[in-house]
Amino acid sequence: MYSAHAEGVIAIRLEAGEDVHASLLSACQQHDVRQAYVVSGIGMLADPTLGYFVSKGQYEQREVPGRFELLSLSGNICLHDGKLMAHLHAMLAHEDLSVFGGHLFAAKVGLTLEALLNVIPPSIRMYRQLEDETGLAGLLVE
Amino acid sequence: MYSAHAEGVIAIRLEAGEDVHASLLSACQQHDVRQAYVVSGIGMLADPTLGYFVSKGQYEQREVPGRFELLSLSGNICLHDGKLMAHLHAMLAHEDLSVFGGHLFAAKVGLTLEALLNVIPPSIRMYRQLEDETGLAGLLVE
Amino acid sequence: MYSAHAEGVIAIRLEAGEDVHASLLSACQQHDVRQAYVVSGIGMLADPTLGYFVSKGQYEQREVPGRFELLSLSGNICLHDGKLMAHLHAMLAHEDLSVFGGHLFAAKVGLTLEALLNVIPPSIRMYRQLEDETGLAGLLVE
Repeated sequence: MYSAHAEGVIAIRLEAGEDVHASLLSACQQHDVRQAYVVSGIGMLADPTLGYFVSKGQYEQREVPGRFELLSLSGNICLHDGKLMAHLHAMLAHEDLSVFGGHLFAAKVGLTLEALLNVIPPSIRMYRQLEDETGLAGLLVE
Repeated sequence: MYSAHAEGVIAIRLEAGEDVHASLLSACQQHDVRQAYVVSGIGMLADPTLGYFVSKGQYEQREVPGRFELLSLSGNICLHDGKLMAHLHAMLAHEDLSVFGGHLFAAKVGLTLEALLNVIPPSIRMYRQLEDETGLAGLLVE
Repeated sequence: MYSAHAEGVIAIRLEAGEDVHASLLSACQQHDVRQAYVVSGIGMLADPTLGYFVSKGQYEQREVPGRFELLSLSGNICLHDGKLMAHLHAMLAHEDLSVFGGHLFAAKVGLTLEALLNVIPPSIRMYRQLEDETGLAGLLVE
């Protein structure tokens, strides 16, 4: 992983085989950042596990074997119960340009991943807390 | 709606049932912001009305009943005839990870919506004006 | 093309017929910016050439005739061998809201393109260098 942080952004380049979630969290930790948004992310992912929220706290999950162009990566990173957590959604493409996507539970980098984070300044408080209604770690912004 | 503004960004969390366009415009108004770009937006939307530009000033519009993962939300907010207007495009996913999308005319939040805006500084002028050629409120940037 | 640069962002509006890659590079040059990320891009594209990485240095490329809603545009611009280069991925929609996408090799603007760039500050070095393993101009971040 290559990463650099300055003036409210973290630029990141991941290499084949690296874990997407762990690497993004690690980049934040290295640069002492506790809250950020993924504002761009392209490259290729391998063997993504994607999901769809079905009902309270329940996701339908599916691993899709293979390597796919990553067309968009959106989401955020912030604290939940004292630990950094990434909430990411991804859109992927097959060789025939057909696409699929969902909530990204896990993925390896397939070839490269080039991403940009916007760091959320400390005067904004962004964190997660379990919500009774959805059964999810809901985002709070103050 | 939860929202906070600092150092050129507005972080926003919307809850189930809130109107997407009205809430984003309201967040801008609360924070006294007249021009911004949506640089990340994930969660779930309900009953989105999507469209495709067919010819001068004409969109083909379709409401898609149901609740869908929101994979990407892009676009901007600025003044048109003295009122704030949002121009948004969205990509959505079904439970089987198949996806669809278009120009987002309207939608409710289906579960949650986590979004980040980049505020455009006042030294840039961004506004809309009716364009004869397209019949649309075209974006001007100065 | 309309564009304006201030406080770390470049706001851009392109018009029908303009070349996407050349216009984005030209906006960077006009504003003396050598590295930036595309953090939002919506509008319509015409006759896009899209691709999928198949194996070392090889992309499967396909031109898709017609005009399509642009749902997301992600990627970056930086130097490769002393020249600015754009690496972009795009997601597009047909009139029936079905979508497709991939690595964007080339496209004209179909109606309008409204984009926002985040400028990467000079204290971060972002550039490309040929990588033996992939046969591609890999991104380096320092």
